[in-house]
Amino acid sequence: MTRALRLAERGAYTTKPNPMVGCVITRDDVIIGEGYHVRAGEPHAEVLAIASAGENVRGATGYVTLEPCAHFGRTPPCADALIAAGLARVVIASLDPFPQVNGQGAQRLRDAGIQVDVGLLEAEARELNRGFYSRLSRGRPWVTLKLASSMDGHTALASGESKWISSDASRRDVHHYRARVGAIVTGAGTVLQDDPQLTARLQGNVDVVQPLRVVLDPGLATVGRGKIREGDAPTLYVHAPNAKVPRDLKAELVSAPVNGNHFNLLSVLHMLAARQVNEVLVETGATLAGAFLNAKLVDELVLYQSPVLLGSGARPLFDNVNITTMAERITLHRTDVRVLGEDLRITYRPQESIA
Amino acid sequence: MTRALRLAERGAYTTKPNPMVGCVITRDDVIIGEGYHVRAGEPHAEVLAIASAGENVRGATGYVTLEPCAHFGRTPPCADALIAAGLARVVIASLDPFPQVNGQGAQRLRDAGIQVDVGLLEAEARELNRGFYSRLSRGRPWVTLKLASSMDGHTALASGESKWISSDASRRDVHHYRARVGAIVTGAGTVLQDDPQLTARLQGNVDVVQPLRVVLDPGLATVGRGKIREGDAPTLYVHAPNAKVPRDLKAELVSAPVNGNHFNLLSVLHMLAARQVNEVLVETGATLAGAFLNAKLVDELVLYQSPVLLGSGARPLFDNVNITTMAERITLHRTDVRVLGEDLRITYRPQESIA
Repeated sequence: MTRALRLAERGAYTTKPNPMVGCVITRDDVIIGEGYHVRAGEPHAEVLAIASAGENVRGATGYVTLEPCAHFGRTPPCADALIAAGLARVVIASLDPFPQVNGQGAQRLRDAGIQVDVGLLEAEARELNRGFYSRLSRGRPWVTLKLASSMDGHTALASGESKWISSDASRRDVHHYRARVGAIVTGAGTVLQDDPQLTARLQGNVDVVQPLRVVLDPGLATVGRGKIREGDAPTLYVHAPNAKVPRDLKAELVSAPVNGNHFNLLSVLHMLAARQVNEVLVETGATLAGAFLNAKLVDELVLYQSPVLLGSGARPLFDNVNITTMAERITLHRTDVRVLGEDLRITYRPQESIA
Repeated sequence: MTRALRLAERGAYTTKPNPMVGCVITRDDVIIGEGYHVRAGEPHAEVLAIASAGENVRGATGYVTLEPCAHFGRTPPCADALIAAGLARVVIASLDPFPQVNGQGAQRLRDAGIQVDVGLLEAEARELNRGFYSRLSRGRPWVTLKLASSMDGHTALASGESKWISSDASRRDVHHYRARVGAIVTGAGTVLQDDPQLTARLQGNVDVVQPLRVVLDPGLATVGRGKIREGDAPTLYVHAPNAKVPRDLKAELVSAPVNGNHFNLLSVLHMLAARQVNEVLVETGATLAGAFLNAKLVDELVLYQSPVLLGSGARPLFDNVNITTMAERITLHRTDVRVLGEDLRITYRPQESIA
């Protein structure tokens, strides 16, 4: 199953909006076939694994990271393929949260006389597809907030200048997060100040389904501006209901409810989930970062911390996060720390995280 | 020599103000004797190593981390002891910066017909006694600035409340730094706000020569207050020349020059060097931390960083460190990162550091 999880992860940049799935087929504890889901619309992991096993597959054992589907989607049900192949046993890491599958795929296998075991490395399998699970169970994508700061907790100078805070290694690393997610959310301020392109640009010949770039721009102040319109990725502008939409605008627009000048971020996330976005990467300044935090909509924080000191007047990581007593402090759980050139990448999750 | 350096370090908490020194004696590449300097006034490493080697010492090779002394201090010259023992060869990691020794110890050995080699693991030996080298070459102690912050770079809430930022493991770890240094410097504000005792309290039966506690208190506002007077360690109050000294005061006082209400920190460090303090640990709030940084008197920063978020209005790591352009940013070199319970301990040195 560990191998099946590794295989599944190879689809991290291309399966969206589908979950990553890996499958390994063994006979007498020797791997005789394997496969993983590469891209939505293309064959599922189980079908590829069966094909690679050849005739040996009869009576073999299959390990699959997610419950085989029991319904017709863009491809025929995988449960039927496993039955037709004549497997004796199927081990499933985690059940599919998708209402049309949940438990039914396993049941269909059992009805066909196959021994089915569920739950091997379940936590790891759910972690792998945390976005898919979040979308189906919470109706919103998994939200990762990316931050870059100096060692004294500043994102930029008072002037807004933030270039050269992060190392080359950190800047390259961000692209792996971008490649994984279904959407990158940013704010109008970041578009105007930093002018990022927000596409996933990986080194080497790596296939990536580009994320949707989402600009939260209440008054549509940035439409028609910046590198955010460049590169081979779609861009969506989210505006306030009362925004004046320019004529002949070619950009894709959607309105979302606001309180004053602040979006209802949960509504924005619901909208993205409806567009089958499993994971969102938030790359913004302190204002929007603070707003996500205040709304308790951050599932993971990724902090790129540089060995640089920006001093007393520089900008904070979060604006408008008001904590006045120690009891109110936000306690995080550090899940990883890694050296990236001169920088550290530290990953946190809020204690109340679902994963 | 690696073994000799390890031995030397065993004296880290007790040799002050003397340097740590270790000595290993070998014959045919087998260790036949070893020793390290434990405490000022007690025998030096070479003498202990010779004694432990017994009669085998004639014609053997000695490895010593610091040049053997050639003058009478509180004990007779070690160079003479090595000569009397009949060593054939002595390998020295680093020459002694002390003017009465530098090169003379090695020369005395050579004059006696002993083969002398200098420079094996010299950088490591100088690093070990960085405080001793700093005091003798720069006339001031090595300065380590201890900081504790949340992941968003705050040391305390706006109210000043800072309890429960650091983990137990971090709080225990600080005591190893305290045990090592000759003096701990703090400010009147920290005494009033946090009321620390600032002694080195190590677990187990570890022998420690306690550091001098130094309170920078221009107006002597804290004399007679706080836990800083408790515990088995001396306390020194540094005050402005115009401070009104209370009658019948039992505390030890010294005045230092000020600009307005700010001490000349280099003068304070010179005064501590004159008291044979090799290393200083600065444990203060943001104001004094910023002042040391602005004065370019920080050789090492030790940051205990907790996975806690304190939000927007909380206190910064440094006050009055004004950086307005990226060219002015202070670039540090990360020398270590370590997991301490929930916290990270990250160690930095300024790029211009001597070590």
